[in-house]
Amino acid sequence: MSDPRPLQFTVIGAGAWGTAVAAHLARRGQRTSLVTRRPEHAVAMQLAGENRDYLPGVKLPAALMVTSDLRAALAEADVALIASPSHALRDWCQRMATELGGVGRLQLFISLVKGLELGTLLRPSEVMAQALPGVNVATLTGPTNAAEVAQGLPAAVVLAVATPGAFVDQVQAAMSGSTLRLYTSDDLAGAEYGASLKNIYAIGAGFCDGLKLGDNAKASLITRALTEMVRVGEHLGAKKETFYGLSGFGDLVATCHGAWSRNREFGEKIGAGESVADLLAGRRTVVEGYRTTQALHDLCLQRGLTAPILGEVHAILYQQKKPIDALMSLMTRELKRETSSPFAKK
Amino acid sequence: MSDPRPLQFTVIGAGAWGTAVAAHLARRGQRTSLVTRRPEHAVAMQLAGENRDYLPGVKLPAALMVTSDLRAALAEADVALIASPSHALRDWCQRMATELGGVGRLQLFISLVKGLELGTLLRPSEVMAQALPGVNVATLTGPTNAAEVAQGLPAAVVLAVATPGAFVDQVQAAMSGSTLRLYTSDDLAGAEYGASLKNIYAIGAGFCDGLKLGDNAKASLITRALTEMVRVGEHLGAKKETFYGLSGFGDLVATCHGAWSRNREFGEKIGAGESVADLLAGRRTVVEGYRTTQALHDLCLQRGLTAPILGEVHAILYQQKKPIDALMSLMTRELKRETSSPFAKK
Repeated sequence: MSDPRPLQFTVIGAGAWGTAVAAHLARRGQRTSLVTRRPEHAVAMQLAGENRDYLPGVKLPAALMVTSDLRAALAEADVALIASPSHALRDWCQRMATELGGVGRLQLFISLVKGLELGTLLRPSEVMAQALPGVNVATLTGPTNAAEVAQGLPAAVVLAVATPGAFVDQVQAAMSGSTLRLYTSDDLAGAEYGASLKNIYAIGAGFCDGLKLGDNAKASLITRALTEMVRVGEHLGAKKETFYGLSGFGDLVATCHGAWSRNREFGEKIGAGESVADLLAGRRTVVEGYRTTQALHDLCLQRGLTAPILGEVHAILYQQKKPIDALMSLMTRELKRETSSPFAKK
Repeated sequence: MSDPRPLQFTVIGAGAWGTAVAAHLARRGQRTSLVTRRPEHAVAMQLAGENRDYLPGVKLPAALMVTSDLRAALAEADVALIASPSHALRDWCQRMATELGGVGRLQLFISLVKGLELGTLLRPSEVMAQALPGVNVATLTGPTNAAEVAQGLPAAVVLAVATPGAFVDQVQAAMSGSTLRLYTSDDLAGAEYGASLKNIYAIGAGFCDGLKLGDNAKASLITRALTEMVRVGEHLGAKKETFYGLSGFGDLVATCHGAWSRNREFGEKIGAGESVADLLAGRRTVVEGYRTTQALHDLCLQRGLTAPILGEVHAILYQQKKPIDALMSLMTRELKRETSSPFAKK
């Protein structure tokens, strides 16, 4: 691939993952802005050369422009990436449409969001497309512990796009380096549903950890979860193969095992006996999987889909079901299905 | 299912997994013998009520008969289970044939072995069928940390059999309890190839751990490993679906992450700089994945199959390739494939 012409990237949302991606881009020599929600956060990051709130210990490249001025940051942007919580996505998109007064130079709008919008049950790229019609939308997903990417440890991710083409190839080349490698996909729905579902199953894996059920039980649960993910995803219009790749299986495995995974840790605490209400009250931000469980539960109800693991996670989070009862009902009820498929009994 | 008539189980090989399965059976009220290779090991276990060498801290049920008298243990056996290392399997099978002088009452011979025979490149059940022709053969596999099963923590496993039927159903019912659940499969080849390959990939995951490449890189490697496992297994005659179940994906995930996994730990030490020769010299037993890497490497060569991850693990273990060079060549070379499949680039 020939050397791409310089692009302007704007990353919106300065949490751990947005910051890590922005730092990676700036280190790759790409012109990059990082937009914070709070002006004081932008100032603090500029002064410290570090995002002490969300990504402490990682030196930000000097070339990275940090600002809370969305309009200025978007004025020259060819590519925008958004890394907000799912519940804040629509507000950001509407602000972007207002500030841009159209779409400006923007050619590609990439979601770093892993969850559906409550109420509408839309995927992030669908919310984005509504706010900025005419701009190609995409998601960047896969097994991505932000701290590792920020530290330059190797990772491989998927850039799933609504409409492939030469500009997407240029972005892929611009963002890929020796440490972070991007692979493209045209299954945007599969990548987004996989990213959303894996957070739910990571909470479930966390229950196993908190209940100290052991690695065998956790592996069985994750095995069933992958099967459920594929089945639900296919019914929702995604390609089966996508879930066996980085954005499904890969992210599921990483999130269910990483000590850093906030969704897994949330489940672990509940499994160990902490109450959901206390955990929600004590947090600055709610883990994505919490709301996503509600959204996907609603979506499955709406479409008439059975998803037993999702159902049990929902019952624990929203209906005060005891984790041990939920897990045991999965072990004894749900696993029976494996006798019919894929382990067919005569 | 109606209450099964009493069966006699004989478990051959008193390592951790053989002992755990025998203890589970005896606790389930099944008449069970556990056969040790060394007479003094049987005596020590009888005196201590515990297998201090391989499964310390687990009280053995009083009803479990521990012996080194293979002939006596097999005389009344309806079901034999064998839990030897793969390289000792043929000797055990030949001793069994000699001691039985035929097949006796034996109706089902279940392998707990996870590896191929070097030289012949046969699966365990194929070796067993050669030694005791006419006896139905099977494998019991899945995510099974022996200590957890011995402690009665929940686990789900697959009993894959050459010939399904009523007797297999009876054995399934007799072995299944509230903690260890068995599901049947008729894809014996898939279950055995999955069990063998996962040990190789667990060594590879261990390299990532030893090199401190992080969870993102490890998840990417395991994602590629699953794809490779499916591709190689399908070429060898197994069913694709089997690898997405407990015996493939489930065991892979558990073994690549469990602190207890000896194959993963072996890889971790090599990744951290220890030499393969030193590790082999310092061990009472060699991890299964070491020999299995050679066997499956030979098998892939023989069948003309490409298996890049297996190839790199082989190069590290047998050709002094540096782990970091092997991993980096996988990250940069092999992962490119995901652009063509399953993440098709336009």
